[in-house]
Amino acid sequence: MAIVLGPNRYGKAETRLVRVVRDGGVHHVKDVNVSTSLSGAMSEAHLTGDNAAVLPTDTQKNTAYALAREHGVGQIEDFALLLARHFTGHDTIHHARVAVEEYGWNRIGDTGHSFARDGGEVRTCVAHHDRDGRASVVSGLTGLVVMNTTGSEFHGFLTDPYTTLEPATDRILATAVDARWRHAGTSADFAASFALVRGCLLEAFAGTHSLSLQQTLYAMGERVLAACPDICEIRLTLPNRHHFPVDLAPFGLDNENEIFYAADRPYGLIEGTVLRDDAPGAGFAWE
Amino acid sequence: MAIVLGPNRYGKAETRLVRVVRDGGVHHVKDVNVSTSLSGAMSEAHLTGDNAAVLPTDTQKNTAYALAREHGVGQIEDFALLLARHFTGHDTIHHARVAVEEYGWNRIGDTGHSFARDGGEVRTCVAHHDRDGRASVVSGLTGLVVMNTTGSEFHGFLTDPYTTLEPATDRILATAVDARWRHAGTSADFAASFALVRGCLLEAFAGTHSLSLQQTLYAMGERVLAACPDICEIRLTLPNRHHFPVDLAPFGLDNENEIFYAADRPYGLIEGTVLRDDAPGAGFAWE
Amino acid sequence: MAIVLGPNRYGKAETRLVRVVRDGGVHHVKDVNVSTSLSGAMSEAHLTGDNAAVLPTDTQKNTAYALAREHGVGQIEDFALLLARHFTGHDTIHHARVAVEEYGWNRIGDTGHSFARDGGEVRTCVAHHDRDGRASVVSGLTGLVVMNTTGSEFHGFLTDPYTTLEPATDRILATAVDARWRHAGTSADFAASFALVRGCLLEAFAGTHSLSLQQTLYAMGERVLAACPDICEIRLTLPNRHHFPVDLAPFGLDNENEIFYAADRPYGLIEGTVLRDDAPGAGFAWE
Amino acid sequence: MAIVLGPNRYGKAETRLVRVVRDGGVHHVKDVNVSTSLSGAMSEAHLTGDNAAVLPTDTQKNTAYALAREHGVGQIEDFALLLARHFTGHDTIHHARVAVEEYGWNRIGDTGHSFARDGGEVRTCVAHHDRDGRASVVSGLTGLVVMNTTGSEFHGFLTDPYTTLEPATDRILATAVDARWRHAGTSADFAASFALVRGCLLEAFAGTHSLSLQQTLYAMGERVLAACPDICEIRLTLPNRHHFPVDLAPFGLDNENEIFYAADRPYGLIEGTVLRDDAPGAGFAWE
Repeated sequence: MAIVLGPNRYGKAETRLVRVVRDGGVHHVKDVNVSTSLSGAMSEAHLTGDNAAVLPTDTQKNTAYALAREHGVGQIEDFALLLARHFTGHDTIHHARVAVEEYGWNRIGDTGHSFARDGGEVRTCVAHHDRDGRASVVSGLTGLVVMNTTGSEFHGFLTDPYTTLEPATDRILATAVDARWRHAGTSADFAASFALVRGCLLEAFAGTHSLSLQQTLYAMGERVLAACPDICEIRLTLPNRHHFPVDLAPFGLDNENEIFYAADRPYGLIEGTVLRDDAPGAGFAWE
Repeated sequence: MAIVLGPNRYGKAETRLVRVVRDGGVHHVKDVNVSTSLSGAMSEAHLTGDNAAVLPTDTQKNTAYALAREHGVGQIEDFALLLARHFTGHDTIHHARVAVEEYGWNRIGDTGHSFARDGGEVRTCVAHHDRDGRASVVSGLTGLVVMNTTGSEFHGFLTDPYTTLEPATDRILATAVDARWRHAGTSADFAASFALVRGCLLEAFAGTHSLSLQQTLYAMGERVLAACPDICEIRLTLPNRHHFPVDLAPFGLDNENEIFYAADRPYGLIEGTVLRDDAPGAGFAWE
Repeated sequence: MAIVLGPNRYGKAETRLVRVVRDGGVHHVKDVNVSTSLSGAMSEAHLTGDNAAVLPTDTQKNTAYALAREHGVGQIEDFALLLARHFTGHDTIHHARVAVEEYGWNRIGDTGHSFARDGGEVRTCVAHHDRDGRASVVSGLTGLVVMNTTGSEFHGFLTDPYTTLEPATDRILATAVDARWRHAGTSADFAASFALVRGCLLEAFAGTHSLSLQQTLYAMGERVLAACPDICEIRLTLPNRHHFPVDLAPFGLDNENEIFYAADRPYGLIEGTVLRDDAPGAGFAWE
Repeated sequence: MAIVLGPNRYGKAETRLVRVVRDGGVHHVKDVNVSTSLSGAMSEAHLTGDNAAVLPTDTQKNTAYALAREHGVGQIEDFALLLARHFTGHDTIHHARVAVEEYGWNRIGDTGHSFARDGGEVRTCVAHHDRDGRASVVSGLTGLVVMNTTGSEFHGFLTDPYTTLEPATDRILATAVDARWRHAGTSADFAASFALVRGCLLEAFAGTHSLSLQQTLYAMGERVLAACPDICEIRLTLPNRHHFPVDLAPFGLDNENEIFYAADRPYGLIEGTVLRDDAPGAGFAWE
């Protein structure tokens, strides 16, 4: 028996990068958060502190800024792939993982250079590239908070001695969508794809008469896959943001699904994958 | 010399209340966070633990829910005033402060009952009411993040031996607007007033060629007061969310205000009040 | 009627500063967060963008670092006073407010240079100094979370039609202490004073059989003032972190104050001041 | 090609449970946060909204409270296993994952029932149990923030055209330890094991003269495995909390590693696994 080094990676997390492109007086903003992780010939660094194979995380940060200047920042998936491919050009770096978050800005006024941040929703991606040229792209979004004030039921569930929940035939269904979808390739039109997926998620959430959040989850995933041939798998994490009707009977008041208490914790948490039955293997895509 | 009880108040903070109004198949959502604080004949409670004068914070929570059912929740200022007035109907409660935050929702799809949360911005208010009928209303917003990618300079400042900052003739100006404005009375059209103030803040931020964030702050406040006769004072807290151009010269690259590092801490913090010189006394409005 | 500039201040918030002092192989760490705010001849900056009177917030940050090197960082109150006094040496700066937070570290191992962060509690202070030599110091702590699992009651309270709370004769009392205390002067032994106050707060919280959180609050404040002649006023903010016994009767189980649900929101919020009846005026101390 | 349901699970997250045990006047507190996730015969729930196989998350919450009352809450690993085993007793539940966080409390005063929260560190575990009786336990801790003020170097690293970092022969090394370790079995003395691991992590962090954070990470993992025969694998996530010496030369001051700026973002992030070469397969332990 011996103690050995297992899987490992190192990188610079959360390099905040804003790029401004000037089209005459009309400016365009790209606001991203870049996290890079490299792995490769790292045994000596761990075992003896010999850093000859280690590309400093400070250099990784510099590289994000420099490549943004040299190549621009288009779709975050393309920028993540560019960075990942770049890093694997080093002999000692066998694999690179690059995650990018993007924050949206909307124009305000007519100055051409004034913007307001677009809420709490964040666009995400994770790209991998290894020295053998294998690559993967997962796109996503997080923080998209949605609610149906009717059209949601929950009954007919399994009961046991610890069950006190009453069946519901009309309840609020609210969640904060965290979705990540895997592309079959690495060269999609990621802007179009993102817009399409986001639209499908909203449509399916709104349009599904829900008998459970699981059913809504599946409908959302199915809608995305049906509409986007390039996407082979989608993973959804949906917290059930409970809204409980307040019991107003002690005050002589009825409450026909009008007044709700929005609870924090605990919360339901529904996680699920929807995929094509002929989806290619995911490899390292989800790591 | 004696040790005595000074100013005090007690209440229920952050009662999360969602109200759904059904107009046939078209639903309307009001999503608020209510915090009530009462003060009055509280000496015995503090000194001897005699709670005869204390309205439990649990009752305050119940009251928020019940009054929402009985009277609806219109503009948050009106609901805050309603609650504050209600509480001062108790003999032992001499003063009530009610703060309400409101979270916005936008419709999605065409179901009439489906919504998505509107970002990070929050509408706020604080209303006071005392047993002598005095009342005040402060409205506000927080979390409105804005940016000008040009049109901002900073130079000609005071220097001393600890100054290393270079003058800037073209910089990014970004901030998260936290604004609160005091109404002269308590019966404004708060919906119209809020929309007008928000518009003024955005217009003045975007439209001001800024020589300092202080100048922008004043311009924002002045614009609001000029447009809103009902408002007599506005207080703005503007963090300077620094965006520093990255030095790419070591990599043989120029950087003409294209690639920025968005910093977290430290940050500038500019706070200021703009008011009418004939504004009535604020009394307890800002407490 | 005219629109005018009211009270204002500007500064650098959250300058993170760590100082290491080497006593041979034994190191000492001071980990602080410094926020400076200046006010004075700021009309032109706001009205015309003329910054001649403005000491850049970047310079304020530099000053915090330089003065830490020149004078060390002893008790945070002394360092805050040093900085505030320094800034008011500028003609255009009439008043300075300096807030400092301190994070504790405990030694680990016997290396003399190894430390672990001491939890969630933070020591705080706010010092003011103006150009006329007036000064004030408020010390404090925040994030001290405490709980009594018995010795707390709450009954005999005011009831109205919205009251459903049952009287409690034995409940958990838990809170996160946020305390700030005003010193009569500016030259106390702040280390000794802090230790004494913290001890009093804990003793009074633990030792008070509580009939309400208000009573506990007063007991905590009174204990501090009785023990610390230098302190003339203390302000306490005590959220009531509710722990509700879970109803296990549906499962055929009793629950004699054994199993609790620790709730997040809403929460009670008790705020109060305890002071000496001959306390000197607070002036700007609490601003 | 068809669209199909992939891996999925559902549960109740963050059930906050506090248990008080009374040993005469001496009370003992257990403060935990329980998250349960179940999977099994969930196709119908996703595809048709038939919930016959679904144990409501509300029931899962009730079960956590009820089993705490029936069996007590000892070591969190044992409680997690108890819950996981319980849930798999249902025919439709094939697998259960239970995560528990524990928050520490220290006694204050001599009342026997008074406590103060122990800082930011959290003890964690994740237990799995399936209907075939397979089980796994991963223990952990998070939020343990440590710092060496010397004894850390970083040089001899790979350089490329984007490298500007200067080699360091004496720097601060600070991190927030996030460690999770896998037990070979499910019946360890988890209290003793936790104390031993925590001690090893601190000793190895303090006692390692570090040439890179990777080297420190490996030393920490190796120390744990060498000391704990029951543990077969440990995973460490170590953010590099950069402390940069401030350049005081512009002010005519030297800075011999005395005054540091503690940075927020970006930060290095070092992740690694240390394991025995004969460790049994992890199965679902890390899921």
